[in-house]
Amino acid sequence: MIRIGVIGYGYWGPNIVRNFHTHESSEVTLVCDKNPKTQERLHKSHPGMAFTTDENEILKSSTIDLVAVVTPVWTHYELAKKALENGKHVFVEKPFTCSVTQAEELIELADRKKLKIMVDHTFLFTGAVKKIRQLMDEGALGDLYYYDSLRVNLGLFQHDVNVIWDLAPHDLSIMDHVIRDKPDAVVATGECHLNGVEDVAFITVYFPRHVIAHINVNWLSPVKVRTTLIGGEKKMLVWNDLEADEKIKIYDKGVSMSKPGALHQLLVSYRSGDMWAPQVEQIEALRAETAYFLKCIDKNETPFNDGIAGLRVVRILEAADRSVRNRGEAVTL
Amino acid sequence: MIRIGVIGYGYWGPNIVRNFHTHESSEVTLVCDKNPKTQERLHKSHPGMAFTTDENEILKSSTIDLVAVVTPVWTHYELAKKALENGKHVFVEKPFTCSVTQAEELIELADRKKLKIMVDHTFLFTGAVKKIRQLMDEGALGDLYYYDSLRVNLGLFQHDVNVIWDLAPHDLSIMDHVIRDKPDAVVATGECHLNGVEDVAFITVYFPRHVIAHINVNWLSPVKVRTTLIGGEKKMLVWNDLEADEKIKIYDKGVSMSKPGALHQLLVSYRSGDMWAPQVEQIEALRAETAYFLKCIDKNETPFNDGIAGLRVVRILEAADRSVRNRGEAVTL
Amino acid sequence: MIRIGVIGYGYWGPNIVRNFHTHESSEVTLVCDKNPKTQERLHKSHPGMAFTTDENEILKSSTIDLVAVVTPVWTHYELAKKALENGKHVFVEKPFTCSVTQAEELIELADRKKLKIMVDHTFLFTGAVKKIRQLMDEGALGDLYYYDSLRVNLGLFQHDVNVIWDLAPHDLSIMDHVIRDKPDAVVATGECHLNGVEDVAFITVYFPRHVIAHINVNWLSPVKVRTTLIGGEKKMLVWNDLEADEKIKIYDKGVSMSKPGALHQLLVSYRSGDMWAPQVEQIEALRAETAYFLKCIDKNETPFNDGIAGLRVVRILEAADRSVRNRGEAVTL
Amino acid sequence: MIRIGVIGYGYWGPNIVRNFHTHESSEVTLVCDKNPKTQERLHKSHPGMAFTTDENEILKSSTIDLVAVVTPVWTHYELAKKALENGKHVFVEKPFTCSVTQAEELIELADRKKLKIMVDHTFLFTGAVKKIRQLMDEGALGDLYYYDSLRVNLGLFQHDVNVIWDLAPHDLSIMDHVIRDKPDAVVATGECHLNGVEDVAFITVYFPRHVIAHINVNWLSPVKVRTTLIGGEKKMLVWNDLEADEKIKIYDKGVSMSKPGALHQLLVSYRSGDMWAPQVEQIEALRAETAYFLKCIDKNETPFNDGIAGLRVVRILEAADRSVRNRGEAVTL
Repeated sequence: MIRIGVIGYGYWGPNIVRNFHTHESSEVTLVCDKNPKTQERLHKSHPGMAFTTDENEILKSSTIDLVAVVTPVWTHYELAKKALENGKHVFVEKPFTCSVTQAEELIELADRKKLKIMVDHTFLFTGAVKKIRQLMDEGALGDLYYYDSLRVNLGLFQHDVNVIWDLAPHDLSIMDHVIRDKPDAVVATGECHLNGVEDVAFITVYFPRHVIAHINVNWLSPVKVRTTLIGGEKKMLVWNDLEADEKIKIYDKGVSMSKPGALHQLLVSYRSGDMWAPQVEQIEALRAETAYFLKCIDKNETPFNDGIAGLRVVRILEAADRSVRNRGEAVTL
Repeated sequence: MIRIGVIGYGYWGPNIVRNFHTHESSEVTLVCDKNPKTQERLHKSHPGMAFTTDENEILKSSTIDLVAVVTPVWTHYELAKKALENGKHVFVEKPFTCSVTQAEELIELADRKKLKIMVDHTFLFTGAVKKIRQLMDEGALGDLYYYDSLRVNLGLFQHDVNVIWDLAPHDLSIMDHVIRDKPDAVVATGECHLNGVEDVAFITVYFPRHVIAHINVNWLSPVKVRTTLIGGEKKMLVWNDLEADEKIKIYDKGVSMSKPGALHQLLVSYRSGDMWAPQVEQIEALRAETAYFLKCIDKNETPFNDGIAGLRVVRILEAADRSVRNRGEAVTL
Repeated sequence: MIRIGVIGYGYWGPNIVRNFHTHESSEVTLVCDKNPKTQERLHKSHPGMAFTTDENEILKSSTIDLVAVVTPVWTHYELAKKALENGKHVFVEKPFTCSVTQAEELIELADRKKLKIMVDHTFLFTGAVKKIRQLMDEGALGDLYYYDSLRVNLGLFQHDVNVIWDLAPHDLSIMDHVIRDKPDAVVATGECHLNGVEDVAFITVYFPRHVIAHINVNWLSPVKVRTTLIGGEKKMLVWNDLEADEKIKIYDKGVSMSKPGALHQLLVSYRSGDMWAPQVEQIEALRAETAYFLKCIDKNETPFNDGIAGLRVVRILEAADRSVRNRGEAVTL
Repeated sequence: MIRIGVIGYGYWGPNIVRNFHTHESSEVTLVCDKNPKTQERLHKSHPGMAFTTDENEILKSSTIDLVAVVTPVWTHYELAKKALENGKHVFVEKPFTCSVTQAEELIELADRKKLKIMVDHTFLFTGAVKKIRQLMDEGALGDLYYYDSLRVNLGLFQHDVNVIWDLAPHDLSIMDHVIRDKPDAVVATGECHLNGVEDVAFITVYFPRHVIAHINVNWLSPVKVRTTLIGGEKKMLVWNDLEADEKIKIYDKGVSMSKPGALHQLLVSYRSGDMWAPQVEQIEALRAETAYFLKCIDKNETPFNDGIAGLRVVRILEAADRSVRNRGEAVTL
């Protein structure tokens, strides 16, 4: 039985508590939140569950094996570090840390202590992303051309981070998971309109072999859009996460050139065939993710969404932040 | 009666001929296309209309008042220049020219000759764009935050220009028309996958007062999208040009900050009200545009989509091209 | 404090328990389900709440004021009757009863006992239906022409009732609520394909003054549709309950005849104006409904969705059943 | 070379003329319309084409082989009859005639004269309907359960026929083409609101073996819908004719019963798999249809959309008319 302490019981914390508490091999033994009124909310769902406002009761507990850090990003590093120092595995919300340096330090510390870090890139456990990764791994799309994601809606404004750190980690972690290549450089643009942090941003990530990714994040859109286009040589894919069914559509469409490079004589031919919407597994992603972490701890395996995966995302976020401040300056990774 | 010569009878030429030929105050007296087989196609729609493969018959004609240049962009400058030198008004396809220098020279020449140039930014004459401009001029959206356009589909690949020069002139001319402010700088990213020219590109245009525009153009998308989001302080707008009805939706939505700038204590409040889809005039935009040019010539008025408007678009295209080649280098306008 | 016993803890029961238990002026003191395993499920959400498999513990309890009957329709009459006989108010799932006779008897009994019946026509408490009723009461649509509803999806098959008794009560109760007129006759058609009860059915309800309603219910549709068209003389309305936002769209569209009746000379004119999607209240309908029943009991007021409203729906269901069995025979109400 | 006379040059006539005139093996030699002003419109598209206001010039012409009757339905019988009597093949607009008697007489006459009749059920030649027929012929859907079509929009009001005779022929001819079984009975309901003819109607068609078809036609809808659901034992299909691409979606969904008939113990199981949108041929249906008629005449073959097919549709229309007037009385076919 893995005993878990959860720090942070705001918007997402209840989901973490519910999942870790209902797996057979784990239980949540203590929940911490700075706000003492939170206890009442916790007890509505989990009567009698132990609660504290002092995170050290979790971090220094002699009976807790795993600490889930479900707090604002600027606190991740300190909390995760203390947890690791006290010999606890760590489950951290995304984005992993505020900086590459912090992430590297936590990874090194966990390594030294033989402890595991999982960064909560929940989307990687959805049926849709699993299907996309499977299709790309099988080569169904052929050589990849581009990855283009649109994630916009009205709010929720974050006070401490900009829209890049708030929304882009989803797309960056998915991109990292399905492209599986090391990006070269980042160019980002954006603007602040309301509270001094960017609320609209456009991020381009350059990969080797002409693969290009683009992420459009916006807190000021009147409509909610969650759509990703992925274009390949053989097939093209549209993932609309707001569709109840048929989230993924694969188009048997393509373009080919008879003499690539020969500008004036080349013939373009278009191929357009059927569209296919594979059934996508209907699961609670967070349930699968938390079960997977428990299994990784039990079997002493490294999760694919470990600190290093979290670091890869933070590295792009950091670069995007620098680029956006310098009006699209290319930041080499 | 204004007598018109049309050079180029490919994809768009027939629409130009049909419109200029059916206005009461104009007639097309000669059509030119390099390809002699074109004559047959012309005569199916316009039996007996004069045809030539030699553009000089139009450019040097003593009876033609106006030359419509409906040819690839790299020929615009030469053809328009000769037409102006021969005392003819010029109607040129978008984009106006291949470079700022060419555009400036044509503007200067027309000015000297007291001749008129119209650049065929057809979209400015659609009911949708007219309605958006009217709403923005009335201040319906409040202070503008961003303009974000997505224009993607499969093909048609152009051999001589990249996707920026092919698709972005639509968005840039509309953006220029409705924002009515001078942009500061451009950042563009993109990639070439098939024939050595960019087929995917993302353009950011910076305006004063934190207004930011973004244009996503792509020849390799499995689905066709023509959507523009415009966010303002008071209202937000979505224009979906592929909707048969309700092309424009205006959302009474917004965000406000109680203490802008005070990061830690500020309160965000969201406003969400009705959505409204104003009826949009159903007209053939090109018909309205050609009629307007005839009227401008008749009344000796300067069209709003004149050479200078064309130049403003070319200036951004040129900057975007330079930026995309330097991986997002900001190019000041 | 109104003490409530809930009979039936299947699909919908948990929502009834949760709502009645969390209002300030009521508490659920006993839950009954035939299946003893249900207790475990109940206790996950409501640890310690009293449970029984014997409905008489609720029906004959001396401390329970209100019985919620959340069981299959063929049990409603017996349970509601006993509850009323034992002096308890009754909240009954839709459809109210299996027959007009049963409904009339319960209404009479409640009346005699000075007890209240509410039939759970939950949809009447949604923001969308409240808005439609308000618009129609204000005369926004002008004279009503038709009401046309499509409610189709795959399953859930009911074993004991056909698709008419399963799905149509939603539409019939909404229709009754917004049209507010007494229907004249019913014509229904349908077919059985799998388990001997109709799984596809089409119901026409005739009202005075040429108003016609039509309800299409289907358990065998590959896609889920929940759309209602309402056409009036002045405006027309589309309600799409599956839209997250903009559930209701009002079209300023219409047709008028210059000389109605004069077949050969009449001129038809179409009017087409703006579309408008009013913001619709976002509430949990069942929460509002249960609160309203508690208020009605407290203030001794008659709820609008009382037994008589339930009877009006049952009367049409009974007629539709008879009509469907006689291949569309018109059944006068 | 088959020489064709076209009677009627209103809304649809120009398409008939254009198609018959541009096939290699046919030419339109004379066009007739009662309205002399029509000549001008004809000559814009077909300069010099012979025109008359006297239909007898076509009907009695010694050089015309085929008469296309593109006039209001109440004139079809007289015109087609005269054409056949004068030894001409006949292409007639849908619906074929005003009554079963008329249709039978024309069929008999054509038979006697060894002439061919084609009824213009254009939809049967679209890529979508061809694909649906192919899928159903292959048994892809398994045993058919239902066919349910929704065809609604605002206008165009017809003065001489009701919405059933105006819109339902499309659906009835498609239904007849893909179901390929003889219907048993018709039940129809509807109402008149504006000019004394039904503008809203709902038609149920009963087939053997529990197959049921339903057609919802409405001239008073604020939105245009053209959607057909077809449910089968193995697969289910949605045809949305307003989609630019992916008009047909096939769902690998189904329901099965473990013990059909045994009401209380039966187990329902749902199957839900992939969705698939086959590419649909992009052709001008009328072009294919007219070419097919020319081929049938040349090869002396009977077209599948002959007078008998037209009669099958008229028989249901006549029955629907009678049923709607008697409030849903079942009319046996």
